[in-house]
Amino acid sequence: MKKRVLVPLAEGFEEMEAVVIVDVLRRAGVEVVLAGLGGVGPVLGSRGISVVAEVALDPALAELGNGARFDAIVLPGGLGGTHGMRDHRGLVAAVAAHAARGGLTAAICAAPLVLERAGLVEGRILTGHPSIQPELSEAGAEVSGRRVVRDGELLTSQGPGTAIEFALAVASDLVGPETALGVSEGMCVN
Amino acid sequence: MKKRVLVPLAEGFEEMEAVVIVDVLRRAGVEVVLAGLGGVGPVLGSRGISVVAEVALDPALAELGNGARFDAIVLPGGLGGTHGMRDHRGLVAAVAAHAARGGLTAAICAAPLVLERAGLVEGRILTGHPSIQPELSEAGAEVSGRRVVRDGELLTSQGPGTAIEFALAVASDLVGPETALGVSEGMCVN
Repeated sequence: MKKRVLVPLAEGFEEMEAVVIVDVLRRAGVEVVLAGLGGVGPVLGSRGISVVAEVALDPALAELGNGARFDAIVLPGGLGGTHGMRDHRGLVAAVAAHAARGGLTAAICAAPLVLERAGLVEGRILTGHPSIQPELSEAGAEVSGRRVVRDGELLTSQGPGTAIEFALAVASDLVGPETALGVSEGMCVN
Repeated sequence: MKKRVLVPLAEGFEEMEAVVIVDVLRRAGVEVVLAGLGGVGPVLGSRGISVVAEVALDPALAELGNGARFDAIVLPGGLGGTHGMRDHRGLVAAVAAHAARGGLTAAICAAPLVLERAGLVEGRILTGHPSIQPELSEAGAEVSGRRVVRDGELLTSQGPGTAIEFALAVASDLVGPETALGVSEGMCVN
């Protein structure tokens, strides 16, 4: 069965991070549900680029309550988008429940602050954009300087420049390292 | 005066390449005109992501006829998008005229095929996605295996995995290497 991943899209999201995550995972054969916090339609990113949310987040989360599952939840950064996600109670609760079941829970750039709001970071090894690393430390995380960091069900990364490595790590986890390597080669990563 | 760059958006464009170009250049303080071949509104990319074109290409090209200038034209790849751009006579003519004036003319992935259609590649040093390199060779280009290649007014690159280096090279040319370095650092590139 095809793997299925939720990528929430909130106004102010970082465009490169969101698009790299969706594009890389689709190249790897993963079904990506690109879900707008404000519903279906264009969502304005941090640098003025609008990307179209394909479904609305709330019904996608309601589906979860009815027994549907995502194999991963992947959170793009951007400070505005992160604040939107962090203030969305349904999303934060879904992230917490998904992680509690051991589901891959990934966040890049500012988005590890959503993991913090979900109560997931204390005592865990994480990274994030340098600008939010002090906040992660204050919340009890052990902050790593590495570009992509895995700690159990949590996968975190630093910014647009690490987004491809981050997305390939998600792909590798879901569909295996050989498929991820093939995607990487087709993209001229190395 | 703010530098001004044209980025055409044609159905089937490679999403990472288009978004990286626009996002990086805007971070560098460049005005980016994201122009849809089919007009204003959502344009469907190669992996099903829709990005909103902010202006229509035809009036933007007509402006050029009236004396307006772009400091650079930057072409994202994706095979479908490349075919759309290559078959748009007005765009191909604008690319040829821009390059003839010595304006920075940049293309990534499959998009160097648009340069070929504009008669710009014979005897020049170029790169592109490995899948289109034979076609560039047949057209008389000297194909380089490097990730980003500069030859006079032409700047070419290979694929999504080289898009950030490519966009930073465009930024460096337009606004200087120090600004490009600052952008790179904020994005956690290295």
